[in-house]
Amino acid sequence: MPNPDPSRRSEKSRRAVLTAAFELVQEVPYAQLTIEGIAGRAGVGKQTIYRWWPSKAAILFDAFLLLSRSDDGATPELPDTGDLRRDLAAVLHATVAELTDPRTDAPMRALAVEIAQDPALARTYHERLDGPLRDAKKRRLRSAQDAGHLARDVDLDVAVDLIWGPLLNRWLQHGGPLTDDYADATLDAALSGLRPR
Amino acid sequence: MPNPDPSRRSEKSRRAVLTAAFELVQEVPYAQLTIEGIAGRAGVGKQTIYRWWPSKAAILFDAFLLLSRSDDGATPELPDTGDLRRDLAAVLHATVAELTDPRTDAPMRALAVEIAQDPALARTYHERLDGPLRDAKKRRLRSAQDAGHLARDVDLDVAVDLIWGPLLNRWLQHGGPLTDDYADATLDAALSGLRPR
Repeated sequence: MPNPDPSRRSEKSRRAVLTAAFELVQEVPYAQLTIEGIAGRAGVGKQTIYRWWPSKAAILFDAFLLLSRSDDGATPELPDTGDLRRDLAAVLHATVAELTDPRTDAPMRALAVEIAQDPALARTYHERLDGPLRDAKKRRLRSAQDAGHLARDVDLDVAVDLIWGPLLNRWLQHGGPLTDDYADATLDAALSGLRPR
Repeated sequence: MPNPDPSRRSEKSRRAVLTAAFELVQEVPYAQLTIEGIAGRAGVGKQTIYRWWPSKAAILFDAFLLLSRSDDGATPELPDTGDLRRDLAAVLHATVAELTDPRTDAPMRALAVEIAQDPALARTYHERLDGPLRDAKKRRLRSAQDAGHLARDVDLDVAVDLIWGPLLNRWLQHGGPLTDDYADATLDAALSGLRPR
């Protein structure tokens, strides 16, 4: 008897649905993404999907959650070479690359649009998906504080928002070109401030 | 004969549609806002609406455009008391008040969600609605440069993004409480920078 274990079969279907949703959101405008479409691509019945997820937003969220888990269960870490500016620039450039690649821009934008309209999903997102990443950013900034490269009295959540907020806002609102130069300019301004030096 | 002028009657219908859309978006989730609903509230036929606007996003945009025009046709200006930090804090606190008031949060969020999904609408938005406001912000910052309160070598677009980006991103993504204290903290960090002083 092939595949005798129902829980293993379930897990296979679950992964097929998440993979299908993540692929489809790169191919069709998110507003046109349907449960039918996901079910068809995944090769499962619509009822199977409805049994597990209340909405396409919930599927998309779980797809991100699946992707974000590294295989060895390691927590995310930012590079720490001792050069804060260089480490943050490397991370921001990687983010620029993701946000300008249609394969990652489309699903991330779809999730961001859902989060903007759904405070409950936003809470889950900030707890389970963005939370571990924000903690990693704050650990890197705390290490910079210990090394004397970051002001001691800076609130680390404010620092994270100042470093990442302008880039994310420009991306989500199509406010201008998303380039390494722009990331560098906002990073330098965030680190050094706007007042005369 | 009452109301003999067709163009005046058109203008009255146009304003009724824009007002209806702006009111309805405060009452129902944006995803449930329909052209039918707007037509019913405005007391015009659906066909009248479709003749003038291709989508509910286009109606919402025009409603904002109508609201943004001051009656005397004046261009927007930021306060300029000579105290940059105080002037910017006053503007940011007014923004916090708008973004936390359901009557303004809901339509602004609906527009932001459309802009996130529609690069063409985003271009029009940044040119016609946000553009004049951004110019006003940059005029205030230029005046601060002239007064020696802002670094000469700072790109003013980067400065605007650093001052407003974190707040707007936290708002749109439900990233945390939107308070005057948060606005002050990000403003102070933007002006002074994150490096040790």
